[in-house]
Amino acid sequence: MNSMRNALFADLYGFTMSACYFENRMFAPAAFSLYIRKYGPHRSYYVSAGLEEVVEFLESFRFAPEEIDYLQSTGLFSTDFLNYLESLRFTGEVFAIPEGRLFFKDEPILEITAPVIEAQLIESFVINAINLQVSIASKAARCIHAAGGKNLVDFSLRRTQGTDAGMKVARASYIAGFKGTSNVLAGMAYGIPIAGTMAHSFVLSFEEEIEAFRAFARTFPDRTVLLIDTYDTVTGAKKAAEVGREMAKRGERLKGVRLDSGDITQLSKEVRGILDEAGLKEVIIFASGGFDEYEIEEALSKGARIDAFGVGTKMGVSADAPYNDIAYKLVEYDGRPVLKLSRAKKTLVNQKQVFREVSGGKMSGDTIGRRAESLPGEPLLECVMRGGKRQVSPQTLETIRERFLSEFSSLGDEHKAIKSPKDYPVRLSPMLEAAQSRTVREVRKRELGESS
Amino acid sequence: MNSMRNALFADLYGFTMSACYFENRMFAPAAFSLYIRKYGPHRSYYVSAGLEEVVEFLESFRFAPEEIDYLQSTGLFSTDFLNYLESLRFTGEVFAIPEGRLFFKDEPILEITAPVIEAQLIESFVINAINLQVSIASKAARCIHAAGGKNLVDFSLRRTQGTDAGMKVARASYIAGFKGTSNVLAGMAYGIPIAGTMAHSFVLSFEEEIEAFRAFARTFPDRTVLLIDTYDTVTGAKKAAEVGREMAKRGERLKGVRLDSGDITQLSKEVRGILDEAGLKEVIIFASGGFDEYEIEEALSKGARIDAFGVGTKMGVSADAPYNDIAYKLVEYDGRPVLKLSRAKKTLVNQKQVFREVSGGKMSGDTIGRRAESLPGEPLLECVMRGGKRQVSPQTLETIRERFLSEFSSLGDEHKAIKSPKDYPVRLSPMLEAAQSRTVREVRKRELGESS
Repeated sequence: MNSMRNALFADLYGFTMSACYFENRMFAPAAFSLYIRKYGPHRSYYVSAGLEEVVEFLESFRFAPEEIDYLQSTGLFSTDFLNYLESLRFTGEVFAIPEGRLFFKDEPILEITAPVIEAQLIESFVINAINLQVSIASKAARCIHAAGGKNLVDFSLRRTQGTDAGMKVARASYIAGFKGTSNVLAGMAYGIPIAGTMAHSFVLSFEEEIEAFRAFARTFPDRTVLLIDTYDTVTGAKKAAEVGREMAKRGERLKGVRLDSGDITQLSKEVRGILDEAGLKEVIIFASGGFDEYEIEEALSKGARIDAFGVGTKMGVSADAPYNDIAYKLVEYDGRPVLKLSRAKKTLVNQKQVFREVSGGKMSGDTIGRRAESLPGEPLLECVMRGGKRQVSPQTLETIRERFLSEFSSLGDEHKAIKSPKDYPVRLSPMLEAAQSRTVREVRKRELGESS
Repeated sequence: MNSMRNALFADLYGFTMSACYFENRMFAPAAFSLYIRKYGPHRSYYVSAGLEEVVEFLESFRFAPEEIDYLQSTGLFSTDFLNYLESLRFTGEVFAIPEGRLFFKDEPILEITAPVIEAQLIESFVINAINLQVSIASKAARCIHAAGGKNLVDFSLRRTQGTDAGMKVARASYIAGFKGTSNVLAGMAYGIPIAGTMAHSFVLSFEEEIEAFRAFARTFPDRTVLLIDTYDTVTGAKKAAEVGREMAKRGERLKGVRLDSGDITQLSKEVRGILDEAGLKEVIIFASGGFDEYEIEEALSKGARIDAFGVGTKMGVSADAPYNDIAYKLVEYDGRPVLKLSRAKKTLVNQKQVFREVSGGKMSGDTIGRRAESLPGEPLLECVMRGGKRQVSPQTLETIRERFLSEFSSLGDEHKAIKSPKDYPVRLSPMLEAAQSRTVREVRKRELGESS
């Protein structure tokens, strides 16, 4: 579904650095870690998502002749280097946390070990693919928690940041527990259930609101959800109730009404009253218009009589945290641990593993250790590619979604709070701590001339 | 470049409403307006962008057999309707503000008039395409204004929301005056100049920082920009100066250094001193790391010695305004003006035109009128499609970019302020005002039973 799975989808510096590596015959293995350096606002966990796309990208990584021609046209690269690129494939190893699992700040989501040119050229795509789906799955999980069992549907398509995001938001929100999406192409591409109601334009196209309601009910007698706020929500609710009663007489059932503007919490109570009074207790109230976890939590805490939410733009762009402080950092080159010195931005050296402990059915803490360590708890990173070949079959979205829902239920509520959640405990293993300190000392001595 | 230019890239409700229109033989022309209802934070103008993509989408709009099969598999649609969709093409008319022009809140960016089913089915794609590029071009224009003539380069690729956004951000920021992008694929696809420096990983791959600097300088003697903050910016600057002097002895010239962390304003002054003292006055200082218009303005106001900026994530996701309150609203059906009643969300009825007046070389005010009106000023919306056919040739990005830069220079600085800019004057023509009031009265009378 995605033509942008392209080896030129990369920052220019990947190519210039690679040209220099090539000239200096630097082909040693490099290990890169992908991780989030700090939590966004009110964030305390992330949901792994996007891995399948990365594996597909790496499996098919190659430069087409016209791409080599373009690189040549820039005048930056030698013919030798361009010939090298032409035959380049990804031959490395990938360890990653499976999609649908929870992870936390500083934990490697993914580690790639490959000849340095390969590991460098894939950087931009890999960050881009993981970052978007992690952002959205995590935002969507927060919405799921806020909704406390009410159904949520992805309504974000029109305002996602581009078409690729439109698809990935449907996928990532479904992983996090959404019931479906309005995006028909995502329904076809991913097998996600599709859902929808009607637009104001539909109501406006008819001479009168009630005629629009009647027409829709005739076409879809078993799935009509009427949008009732085009002119006035309370008046609209009365007309919907009238159509609901007409349907009942025909042995049909009005499925629901949708509120999309105004004080939806207050209106939901009035509309519930109107529907109940008309004997339409089964008719659900569907709400949309500006909802994300904050508004869902607020509406429900004020007693809104809402049965399901269409969650749109704010989830689809992760509006309160539209980007993550995510980084793809070199942690080992040719067997040598490396790190950037920075107070604010910590890199953990070496290939790593994350161990998750569970106690009494609840996640109790993670330890980040070195890859080869054997520590208490379940290791989260799995080998998904080796020698450039996929090691695990693609998983169905249902499998990933169930994995998420199961693990999410084992995360304590204190870490899921919509505002100011408690940080989940993540520690470093003594062996990693030691490697880290040793490397910092060595680098400071070598580069800054400090005595050790 | 975009496989997602797909007729199923649409909300399900577009199809269910269309099925109902089809069943009721409602094929009359519908006019929809696309516009932004309210300004985002500190916003006071928008840059038109994304139109070319919309025209290409509409020109090629059709359903493939496997897409019809998918729609059939949902069980929602009659065979008659599916047959109708199979032969459906876009036959309508599009008026739009050309790419690169400024526009304001409430002004239609684009108006589509077509048989209602066509006009409805294309909704999600059209909003998505225009919304993203308008957001980014507008954010990028703000960065250009803040930079006051310093060069800006798009560095956002890794953290844009998906791959489509990665491409469109490069395009939209170039329209707004950026000098280039780090995105190599955008360089190939759009002919945008590409640029880049080096990563921390490059420095780390070498045993010593200065060896990394020397190696890069040997490979790229005429375009080396050294990243100097891997270990310590001041120490790195001294090593860069050493390499710069070595290059000078060989008759080469170090192009620049890049700062990417720490107190960049303060560091830029120290680094400038180190370079100047080494006789490297021509070496530019390039800064990156968290810049958008707010940080650029602040750095420059504090006297930062920065010659060019890499502008990344915050521009690439429009971080302070990651979505617009953009709407595609029915304004006329079968010749009848229509509108949704809502205090907060105003729709302007009927097909419209925007007239722009310029006085003394400065934009002095816009008037939104009815399409057929002839008012003082230049009409902004042009007919770009008629009968489903393109009426204007695709324009080069250079043309669009020059159009923007020229018009932007005629917008008063009071409207360009980075914080709390003054609203630009936009009024409604008396004829549009009258149509608006008349429609509101009629609708209130008909739907709410109010006396007129």
